[in-house]
Parts: sequence; structure tokens; C-alpha cells
Amino acid sequence: MLAFVVRNRQLFATRKPIPKLRPGWALVRVRLAGICNTDVEILRGYHNFRGTPGHEFVGKVQDVAGVSAHEKLWLGKRVVGEINISCHALAFRSICIYCKRGLTRHCARRKVLGIINHDGAFAEYLTLPLENLQVVPNSVSDEQAVFVEPLAAACEILDQVPVKKFREAGVLGDGKLAQLIARVLRSQLSRVVLYGKHNEKLALAHAAKIETQKVRGDSTDSKRIKETFGLLVEATGSPAGLALAQQMTEPRGTLILKSTFHGAASVETWPTVVKELTIVGSRCGPFDKAVALLRSGKVDPRPLITGTFPLGEAPAAIRYAQQPGVMKVLLRSS
Amino acid sequence: MLAFVVRNRQLFATRKPIPKLRPGWALVRVRLAGICNTDVEILRGYHNFRGTPGHEFVGKVQDVAGVSAHEKLWLGKRVVGEINISCHALAFRSICIYCKRGLTRHCARRKVLGIINHDGAFAEYLTLPLENLQVVPNSVSDEQAVFVEPLAAACEILDQVPVKKFREAGVLGDGKLAQLIARVLRSQLSRVVLYGKHNEKLALAHAAKIETQKVRGDSTDSKRIKETFGLLVEATGSPAGLALAQQMTEPRGTLILKSTFHGAASVETWPTVVKELTIVGSRCGPFDKAVALLRSGKVDPRPLITGTFPLGEAPAAIRYAQQPGVMKVLLRSS
Repeated sequence: MLAFVVRNRQLFATRKPIPKLRPGWALVRVRLAGICNTDVEILRGYHNFRGTPGHEFVGKVQDVAGVSAHEKLWLGKRVVGEINISCHALAFRSICIYCKRGLTRHCARRKVLGIINHDGAFAEYLTLPLENLQVVPNSVSDEQAVFVEPLAAACEILDQVPVKKFREAGVLGDGKLAQLIARVLRSQLSRVVLYGKHNEKLALAHAAKIETQKVRGDSTDSKRIKETFGLLVEATGSPAGLALAQQMTEPRGTLILKSTFHGAASVETWPTVVKELTIVGSRCGPFDKAVALLRSGKVDPRPLITGTFPLGEAPAAIRYAQQPGVMKVLLRSS
Repeated sequence: MLAFVVRNRQLFATRKPIPKLRPGWALVRVRLAGICNTDVEILRGYHNFRGTPGHEFVGKVQDVAGVSAHEKLWLGKRVVGEINISCHALAFRSICIYCKRGLTRHCARRKVLGIINHDGAFAEYLTLPLENLQVVPNSVSDEQAVFVEPLAAACEILDQVPVKKFREAGVLGDGKLAQLIARVLRSQLSRVVLYGKHNEKLALAHAAKIETQKVRGDSTDSKRIKETFGLLVEATGSPAGLALAQQMTEPRGTLILKSTFHGAASVETWPTVVKELTIVGSRCGPFDKAVALLRSGKVDPRPLITGTFPLGEAPAAIRYAQQPGVMKVLLRSS
């Protein structure tokens, strides 16, 4: 099969055998894969990952191994997949303390599709445990379903914070994840304000009934922003975001941290103490809620797609994904 | 009366008239005042405060103004006092949104005893609204009562987090506030581990049935510390504390931030996102709980007193309070 691999901070095409299956695992023929900023970071050396990247996908189950007749019903199903592979699926004899508590996405020994020790979706096929898969309803298109992973990360906020307790929310950042977060919050709240630097990205949010505010991005700008929020999400992906986020969260308010940039940021943390903020780190989320949200029609991520490339052109697609103004770029495997 | 004031980053003795009272306010004769690190920071320019510092005190109500016969019962009472003076006590016509929600310690227009726009306890007399006062029971000595303000700050954690849900807790730091926090947590949990750099301070904690761990304090030391906690309190007062605190908090754990040092710290925040930590900023707390804790005998802060100076020697006392190994220093007004 065709698969791309990371070598020396570049993406190379290679031919590999179709991966063998462990019992309880599925072989998935990838139909669409999404390019995420994490993939770009992996190319820069994040996690020292040297396999096949890609963790956003929709595909069809082509084979399953060592399972019951009932589980064989997965064959041919159109699926998306939870990217964290836990102790249980890895068949360790004992399971870790986080898996014991049901926090399988925090498994101490986890592999992560396309990120940590497990080949990902920039290939014709990938493997995942059946327990990681989620069937995509017919009413949800491939172009919608490929957003389930990042949309689940946005939905994680709903599991962590009683969002409906707030009258409104602010979102810092206008990138792909910030846009999905604003849409998810807007499905729960009558007013969501997204703060970003790019007119064309603000326009995308505006079209989804999200209020927008232009941020100039120099350090003087923080003085111009007066509004504060009881619920604020920091999703700029930039070290500078946290300082402004602390300023914009009201006393005793909740600040959700979504940015996972690497490298240290210089931050004054006393505002968090003086204002008694609650800062909630938020990473991966519930796939079932994301699928339900797509099915309901309350969130449609398709306007965020800027371009679709054939899988064979993955290196060009990743370069394109890093151009200014480009949002989601997809890879189609035919 | 004798009062000390901050001028040009130094403490000067001055004679002032006894302050006049607004209706609903009390004149308090200070008996003991405590020196806090915030007082040291005020001398370094924090909040540009130019009046009389001091916000930890126990005293006696000498006078009250414009109040009912019932309120006159405060006369002669031994009291401690909440340091945040809210809209209501300041008799603004309308009250701010935080006071409306009952968050008077976060009042948008607050004055703070000895910190923001209101003279404090390094003087023979101070004034506070009656609503800020708390009577000290006879069984609680002056030397205990003078700790009520910082002990209330430690008790704030109990109001913010369901502490008893955790089996154990870690405390980073061995200074005055860290010591009080460890004692408050120990009153709720069977195991509390305090991490500090100073043998004599660790010994103080050990005597209060708190487990202790010596930290060397260089950057390699973080690799040596393997234990993680579901509940961890960062109270080192140092910018380096947050990185170690993130490392020592387990996935989905709660990290309480108590350090209010000023100046930026260089911090990687991705561990908070990847581990989905909840960081809770924590400042002032409930005086009634602190008084009840002292009365119960579950916490006795007196071993933390290193020295007591007459009020007239306040400048020498503040210099002494900054010497290595010195814990709480008190000023006695006779």
C-alpha cells in the first residue's frame, strides 16, 4: 500500500505491506484524512515520531481479526476512530491506574494514532482496535466525518465545564480548532465572540452566527480589549495567548486552555491567583458527541475546508496547509 | 497615634491622628500584627501602595460609628478582620457585578487593608467596616488569631475543591503560607507531603504530622521527584514552581496556584493541556472557617512564629523577616 513516513523532518512516499491485525483490531481503508497543526509539528520533530502521521480520518472497515460473529458486523462499516489506544486494546496483562478509572485517553502506556508509536492516516490503510471505532451515520458525509476527531476535542469542553451555566463565551484564536470550538459553544449558547487576526477567518466564523472581533496582535492591543468573559477558551496556538486570556477572563471565571504549542512562554501567573481563575487544560474528546453534533446539523464544519489533494500529493498538501489563510486541507485516498 | 508608612521603598515611623470613622465602621486597637511576604513586596513597589501596610492582625474594637444599639455590642470585642473592603461597605450607590453575585472579595472597586488604598495594621489603630470583622473566641489566643488571615487563605482551598475526594495531597514550598496550607489539608486528609528546600522548615512541618521531602532546587531535581498527586498545591512563591507542579500533578488532577510573585515566569503550558489538569487560582479565604479551625485545635500555627518585635521596631522586624530561615514575625502594639 501507499503510505507516507516522516524522515529527517520531511514526508516521504513509501510502499508498505498492508498491516497485520491483532485480535480485536480492524483494518480500515482510509477515504479522507485531515491535516492538523500537530502533523506540522510532527514534521518539526514533535514526539520524535518517525512513522506515518495523520490522526483525522474517515474510512471503511476492510477486515477484522479474531472476533465474534457479532463483531464481524463491523465489516464494511464507514467509521471514524478514537486516536488514543489504551492498555486494554494493547492487551497488557494489567491495566494502568488511569485506565482503571476509565480515563483511557490518559492511559499511561497509550499509543496514539499517527502521533505516538502507531502509524496513522496518511496511508491507504490504518489499524485501530474495534473499541476505538465509531460508525458514521449515513446522513453525515465523508467531508463532515473527517472533522470528528478535532470536533470531539472541541466537545471535550462540554464534558469538562457546565457550559450552559454561562450566558456567553469568548474564544481566542481564529484557526481550525478555535473555529470548531466556537461552533460547538454556539450550539449551546446564544452569544459566542471569537477574537482573531485574520479577516477571512473571522468571516468564516461570522457566517456560522459567531460574533467576531479583530485583534491586531501587537502588545498594545490587549489594552484595547475591554470585554471579559466568565468562560473563555484560549486556542490561539501561540505563547502570547495566555496573558490576554487571563486578562479577558473575569474573576472566578473559567479559562479553557487548548493550545499545545511546544516551547516555553513567558507568562505572569499572578492574575490567575488574584482573580481566582480556574484554568482547565483540554485535549481529546468524546467521538460520540461529535458525531451526534454533525448528525443534528447544529455544526457543519465543511466551510472550513480550503482544499483537497490526492493522498499521493501529501507533501504538497502539507506545504499548502501552512500557507497564510489556509484552513483545513484534506487528503483523498481513492 | 504611631503608624508606619511606606515612602521610597522604606518604612518610616510617623504620628497620625486616630482615623475618623464612617457610619458602619469600627476603630480597632491593634494588639498583634503579622508580617507577610506581601508586605515585603509592597516595600518593593507592589501596587504602588504609599500608606500604612499590614493586613494580618488581631485587635480590640475601640469605637463604632453611626450604628444601632445592637451593633454597639461590638465595642470591646477582640476581633480579626477580612481585608477586602467591598462596594457595599464603601457606600457606593450601586454595587458592582461581583458584589451582586456575593463575590465581595472580588469587588471591582475594592480597597484592601494595608494593600490597596486603605491604611493597614502596622499602626496603633486601624479602621474596617463592621461587616468585615469576626469575633475571636476566648479559647483562641492573640498569637493564634493573628494567623487568621493567612489561614483563611489556606482554607479557601476547601471552598474551591472537594478536598476529601482525594486520598492525599502534595504541597510545593515550605514557607509560611505553604506550611499553613499543609496543616489545613492535613486536617482533612490522612497523608499530606510537603516539598521544600530548608531542613528547619521541613522539621516544622514534620512536627505537625506532615510528610516531608527535601528538594534540592536545581533544575535536575525535577527528574528525581517521581511521585504524582491528584491534588497538588503550588505555594513556593517562585516562578520555577509551576513547571514542577505541572509535572507532579497527575492527569486530570487539580493544581492549586497560591504563589503571587510578580514578574513573568518562563513556563511550558502544554503539560496542562495534554494531562488535562485543572489549575485553580486561590487567594483570600473564609475567616469563619479559619477561626473554627483554630478553635477546634486541629491547626495550631504558633510554632511558625520566629520572633515578636514591638510595633516601634517595625523596620527592624521587616528586615528580620527577610532573613533566611525566619518564618512568621509579629509586631506587638502595647
